[in-house]
Amino acid sequence: MFGITASSRLRPSPFYEATLAEGVTAFTTYNHMLMPTGFGQPQAEYWRLINGVSQWDVAVERQVQLQGPDAAKLAQILCTRDLSQCAVGQGKYVALCNHDGVLINDPILLKLDDDRYWLSIADSNIWFWARAIAAERGLRVTVSEPDVSPLAVQGPQAENVVASIFGDWVRGLKYFWFRNTEIAGIPVAVARSGWSKQGGFELYLMDGSKGTQLWNIVREAGKPWGIGPGNPNACERIETGLLSYGGDTDGSTNPFEVRMGKYVDLDIPDDVIGIQALRRIRREGVQRQQLGVLIDGDQPLEPGFHWHAIHHRGAKVGDLTNCVWSYRLQRNIGFGLVAIDCAAGDRVEVHRHGQPLPASLCALPFL
Amino acid sequence: MFGITASSRLRPSPFYEATLAEGVTAFTTYNHMLMPTGFGQPQAEYWRLINGVSQWDVAVERQVQLQGPDAAKLAQILCTRDLSQCAVGQGKYVALCNHDGVLINDPILLKLDDDRYWLSIADSNIWFWARAIAAERGLRVTVSEPDVSPLAVQGPQAENVVASIFGDWVRGLKYFWFRNTEIAGIPVAVARSGWSKQGGFELYLMDGSKGTQLWNIVREAGKPWGIGPGNPNACERIETGLLSYGGDTDGSTNPFEVRMGKYVDLDIPDDVIGIQALRRIRREGVQRQQLGVLIDGDQPLEPGFHWHAIHHRGAKVGDLTNCVWSYRLQRNIGFGLVAIDCAAGDRVEVHRHGQPLPASLCALPFL
Repeated sequence: MFGITASSRLRPSPFYEATLAEGVTAFTTYNHMLMPTGFGQPQAEYWRLINGVSQWDVAVERQVQLQGPDAAKLAQILCTRDLSQCAVGQGKYVALCNHDGVLINDPILLKLDDDRYWLSIADSNIWFWARAIAAERGLRVTVSEPDVSPLAVQGPQAENVVASIFGDWVRGLKYFWFRNTEIAGIPVAVARSGWSKQGGFELYLMDGSKGTQLWNIVREAGKPWGIGPGNPNACERIETGLLSYGGDTDGSTNPFEVRMGKYVDLDIPDDVIGIQALRRIRREGVQRQQLGVLIDGDQPLEPGFHWHAIHHRGAKVGDLTNCVWSYRLQRNIGFGLVAIDCAAGDRVEVHRHGQPLPASLCALPFL
Repeated sequence: MFGITASSRLRPSPFYEATLAEGVTAFTTYNHMLMPTGFGQPQAEYWRLINGVSQWDVAVERQVQLQGPDAAKLAQILCTRDLSQCAVGQGKYVALCNHDGVLINDPILLKLDDDRYWLSIADSNIWFWARAIAAERGLRVTVSEPDVSPLAVQGPQAENVVASIFGDWVRGLKYFWFRNTEIAGIPVAVARSGWSKQGGFELYLMDGSKGTQLWNIVREAGKPWGIGPGNPNACERIETGLLSYGGDTDGSTNPFEVRMGKYVDLDIPDDVIGIQALRRIRREGVQRQQLGVLIDGDQPLEPGFHWHAIHHRGAKVGDLTNCVWSYRLQRNIGFGLVAIDCAAGDRVEVHRHGQPLPASLCALPFL
């Protein structure tokens, strides 16, 4: 592992000092910020998420705020999912596309009010995108980055921890719904969400000066359940089939290729960006699909920065877009973005650093 | 220094393998790619740039290609500088702004043909921006990311090295001009440019599979002049006053605040994005300016991820946006983005990790 050089181009999060105190050892960058990616005990960090509860600095999930009389209109123009029934206090997982139907982000949309929305974004610049569209279409809406930084509490015991802090009402929150509240004077939105399939919440901190304080409130409250630090977990998210925008997608990926078709509503108005292209793609069919890849062998492979070519019967059929050692499956697994005529069960070869690795395609998720 | 975790969200460059072979020790991320930031000998890397010649993997300077009948029109719409006299083979340093006149990138624009331009960008997503504008205005132009990756050769001996590879014609290239050529069958555009003030060239590699080969051609050719690996050098660029977009700017910085006013032409057409806002800002005056900060004391400070508040007479007047130990000045220096009523010579305090450091403001550049 190489070092990451300090630079003010890469902002620390409000939880940075707290994660230093927890012994963070590595970072990635995401939306021009630092995100912790390890605390020195990868196995413990994984099993804590699967069996207990883990707290994560996910402040890099930045908010693109749309506010003003045309905020609802802009939200719908940007999102390829029907938002007409979205209630205040509700969130929705959405696909943002460009005019060609290419996926440019997969945020959670949160409706805070009839004239205020957040897009809690993956790793691409949606401020520029939303501002360009708003200005070019003459919409009365302000696009901004508010002082909002999520802290995730994830795992089967997360509900107990969050209920012990905020009260039992959190147990009644439906998936992706949220409520504004506060704890120790710190303004927080509590949402049932998070980038794992182990259940949990995201606490949207709304005062960046209180990061360490909120981190420590969760840390103390979680002690009876054995809470510890963690981060969006590459192993768990690949096992459970969660998409990483920018990691598992490229400059031509559309939502249908990466199992997001169910979040696209083709009958929404024509002024939604990309919807006409998506109707055409749906009609004509996609060229690629996302399948699981189970690599033969029982030795963990080194993680890498590259995609790796997948070959079938001597010809390239796609790419392995991620790869991780699964602690539960005891196999190297990953996602393949492969030709539409590939199928689960196909035997393939992954070409990694010049070496062909025998593997099988399978349905997603793995677990 | 913390580790950086491997992820396919962060692409390696075509020169990645070559920089591994050179002993790269650290990276930053830039335009969702990895950029080497050190080879383990910071002083030698610095002095090689000042006194000799250095080769850098700057593939992260990605190209946003505008191609089609309306490419020239879109280029001018995006750039706040008059491009009407720009010739094929010429480059220009330009300020890209949003509709409010806020700086969103400071690329080199290269005119490859009457209907083809590259924006060789700093660290923000201009593909999304350019595509949004092109689509919303119905322009006949394709915005793409071509297979183009610059390798910089910088330092007072750079011209000798590049001339020894491509011929003495490179000595006649004017600043920011470029010419397409090839070496050993590798297609390259040779430009007189680079993010240092020590002189030099950027070789725009146009075949990503040939990165190691091009790197080694430069490495071999440079041996008589003592070439070695390096990277955009924080010390040199701060000494010489070069701007880092995203590091020295924030979400409201306009070009006039950061010494880019000379690159803005206020009499270009009204459809140029941001030009009307920039005329108003020029008329009303800016609130902030960029000055040098000379910190008292002769011990190097640790580099950090944060901006640091600058106080004058007990009140905050701005921020220190970068900070480095200057090998030539033997002082800690940085850029201040400070209130317009501050002046060179003012004594100030930099508040860093709770500790007030006495300092003086000065004109830029330092050297």
